Amino acid sequence: MHYDKLQEHQQKISHLAYAKGQLSWDESTMMPAGGGEIRAKAMATIEGILHQNQTAEWLAESLEKAKEEPLNAWQKKNLGLLAEGFHARKALSQEFVERKTYILSKSEQAWPAFKKNHDWKGFLPTIEKAFGVLKEKAELLGDALGKTPYDALLHQYEPGLTMDFVDPLFSKLKNTLPGLIQEVRGQQEGWELTAFPEASVEEQYKLSISLMKKLGFDFNHGRLDTSAHPFCGGDPRDVRLTTRYDTKDLSTSLMSVLHETGHAMYEQGLPRKWLDQPVGKAIGMAAHESQSLFIEMQICLSQPFLNILSRHLTQKLGQHASFTAENLKARYHRVSPGFIRVDSDELTYPMHVILRYEIEKDLFAGKMTVKDIPERWNSMMQEFLGVNPKEQHGLGCLQDVHWPCGLFGYFPDYTLGAMIAACLRKQMNKDIPTLDQQIEEEDFAPMFSWLRKNFHEHGSHMNTRELLHKVSGSDLDVDVYLDHLKSRYLKP
Amino acid sequence: MHYDKLQEHQQKISHLAYAKGQLSWDESTMMPAGGGEIRAKAMATIEGILHQNQTAEWLAESLEKAKEEPLNAWQKKNLGLLAEGFHARKALSQEFVERKTYILSKSEQAWPAFKKNHDWKGFLPTIEKAFGVLKEKAELLGDALGKTPYDALLHQYEPGLTMDFVDPLFSKLKNTLPGLIQEVRGQQEGWELTAFPEASVEEQYKLSISLMKKLGFDFNHGRLDTSAHPFCGGDPRDVRLTTRYDTKDLSTSLMSVLHETGHAMYEQGLPRKWLDQPVGKAIGMAAHESQSLFIEMQICLSQPFLNILSRHLTQKLGQHASFTAENLKARYHRVSPGFIRVDSDELTYPMHVILRYEIEKDLFAGKMTVKDIPERWNSMMQEFLGVNPKEQHGLGCLQDVHWPCGLFGYFPDYTLGAMIAACLRKQMNKDIPTLDQQIEEEDFAPMFSWLRKNFHEHGSHMNTRELLHKVSGSDLDVDVYLDHLKSRYLKP
Repeated sequence: MHYDKLQEHQQKISHLAYAKGQLSWDESTMMPAGGGEIRAKAMATIEGILHQNQTAEWLAESLEKAKEEPLNAWQKKNLGLLAEGFHARKALSQEFVERKTYILSKSEQAWPAFKKNHDWKGFLPTIEKAFGVLKEKAELLGDALGKTPYDALLHQYEPGLTMDFVDPLFSKLKNTLPGLIQEVRGQQEGWELTAFPEASVEEQYKLSISLMKKLGFDFNHGRLDTSAHPFCGGDPRDVRLTTRYDTKDLSTSLMSVLHETGHAMYEQGLPRKWLDQPVGKAIGMAAHESQSLFIEMQICLSQPFLNILSRHLTQKLGQHASFTAENLKARYHRVSPGFIRVDSDELTYPMHVILRYEIEKDLFAGKMTVKDIPERWNSMMQEFLGVNPKEQHGLGCLQDVHWPCGLFGYFPDYTLGAMIAACLRKQMNKDIPTLDQQIEEEDFAPMFSWLRKNFHEHGSHMNTRELLHKVSGSDLDVDVYLDHLKSRYLKP
Repeated sequence: MHYDKLQEHQQKISHLAYAKGQLSWDESTMMPAGGGEIRAKAMATIEGILHQNQTAEWLAESLEKAKEEPLNAWQKKNLGLLAEGFHARKALSQEFVERKTYILSKSEQAWPAFKKNHDWKGFLPTIEKAFGVLKEKAELLGDALGKTPYDALLHQYEPGLTMDFVDPLFSKLKNTLPGLIQEVRGQQEGWELTAFPEASVEEQYKLSISLMKKLGFDFNHGRLDTSAHPFCGGDPRDVRLTTRYDTKDLSTSLMSVLHETGHAMYEQGLPRKWLDQPVGKAIGMAAHESQSLFIEMQICLSQPFLNILSRHLTQKLGQHASFTAENLKARYHRVSPGFIRVDSDELTYPMHVILRYEIEKDLFAGKMTVKDIPERWNSMMQEFLGVNPKEQHGLGCLQDVHWPCGLFGYFPDYTLGAMIAACLRKQMNKDIPTLDQQIEEEDFAPMFSWLRKNFHEHGSHMNTRELLHKVSGSDLDVDVYLDHLKSRYLKP
């Protein structure tokens, strides 16, 4: 009875969070700039009401008493997640979450213009405010959860994640990747790339839609739009994907749509019965990125899929020298250190993430301040990848929306997701020996059926490492990831 | 102090209502069909939270005590509106408003398919449910406000409106218009209309945007999209207009965009300082329709604007026989009884409204049931306009979204709005003798400046009749409206 009441109350919270998610999607895709102020205020108000509901006095007792009730395994796990959410929320005040939401919404709205103008100095007061409010949150959460502030943030995006777990994995990558990159680049010398023909936004949109349909995206429960930064938002029953188009390079948007489709398929595969409860939601953002990167990196960058893509481009846009499978391989497998994380290849990408992770750790440990970011950024870019954006901060520390909108502690999940994806692929190869052939034949049903059964349908019933262990019999293994990279990029 | 607290609390309510408005806009413009169930549930939850906030226990005492505080005229009026809103809300329960919101949202979602298939029988259980929940609301509100159920609904859309006020006005129209229509049709015999060239959605969208810009719509605080039924939603700081396009007849969408722009200009002209308080919102829907119809009927159907439109179409789409001012006049001034309210001309339009008004009155007085609607509809169409949709209910009683989404009591506001617009135009002609010339020269600034000063900026500080009296020295006068119609449509 207590449990039922908690579950019903949680449904209301889920509806409110859904409304806030819709406002946020609209803010990034539809909202005229002048709507920014009322939008930020309204989102702060809703966050405040969410907070009130999530910290209501009666919850403490009900959460205790519900433990005595006869519950099945999913209900038990759900109760545990509800209790944890309550405990974490209690560490914050309504005044704080309203202030934080307003500050971060305004900061996110302000960011594009400063990025465009490479104006770090102009943006500094705004990003200092955003960091300040996140530091406050991290400290409050950390105190309540018995974690360091930065671990509290890591945990918030991917339950159970700690620096102690991440450090050795990233350390191995940091020691291995630069050499690997150099070796691969040596082998790739002389690779030539034929430029893609110009393609209108309309043409690229249609191309994206047809690829999403090929993969099985359910357009009765989702749509594709345009935003400055691609993302997957909304709700499993109404998933909102976005991308952005470069009319001079259709290859960029294509892969980002496929990436976001991976996120969307995870959402659309979550257990229907539990969608409004924590146990029915995605485990965390490393888990989420594992699904997008499984589709993007493990599937869409593989030769069988590049063959599909080649046929598809020719069919939709006509014959063009750039549409051969060889040229697509040259485009997507070429390793080339650059400034921009989202445009980077599979091998250099983790170095971008590690750079951000190290800066974030030092910021939250008080070893550096926000003011120091550009210098640190540029010197690490030089060290890690041999490139330096100098004063062009729009190509440097201003390139990502994450910090302006307060997503500190999120970046590691991209690379952890890539590792999980590699582990999942290894197991899938064992379970579906004919996978490559199926992909070549454009039959994605067995693959998604495997992902649903082994990953999506579990919701948050287990955490990511438990789930991975259940699926593959092993914990997250950085060597599986490195093996994948070597086998794809190094000639024997 | 009590007043300040009330005002702050109201701001939170306004933010929540804004969020609900955004969800509703998205539902009509963007949402994939499969998102309907969670959308309806979420909107019901938010309506419930709005209700909780609007009926909180402490409000009763604060509303009383605030009366003793030193307040200026706007604050006093605002307090009065807050008290009235509280009183009306108290008549309903949270359970009821959640149920009502869910039922109406689902009913609105279900309507288009039944309309398309002329399937009255199939839609009957749904529309009976929608009417049932509205009847329940009307009775609860009526009891609390000391009004009949239908008067309570009229009042909700346009404060102070009663059947006693509407009946004699509509009775005069009902007695005058059929004869006038016949006379005008006789004079128009032989009028020929050149069909418009086909125009793509993209072309029509661009045309719409350029006309909205011409009128002064602020795109930094609003946008134009597509929906099955044109509407103006959103917030004064982010106004969301919609239209629908017929590629075979660009004239339909054009005028509907201009109509919605009239709504939008009212919203964008409301007093900035008060936007989140009841005193800063539009007075009611008759007032709102007066602004859309002022633009559509009083301005855009006038000869000077048809001249502009002729030049504009030629400039944007090239020379075409249908783009002459004469042909535009033949298109927009031709009186021709038809099935569809939104496609009808200025003279027959009120008959469509009176038909709906009479059906609604009888439904709420228990003189007929929902089952009787089609027969009653068709016989009144025959009587009023000499046309009969028979079993094609999509062209008959299923044509409007209003009843499916619960807007009983709204229709009269269209024709009252047209009357108010005529009265405003009469006064404006006195105050701006060179108005026609200014319009011909595409100078709309003096006109909007007059509307802002005399109408928009007053928010809800006065009700519509008080405001009209202040502006023109007279009450709403049906003869001013009839004079306008005669002078436009009857040759001397």
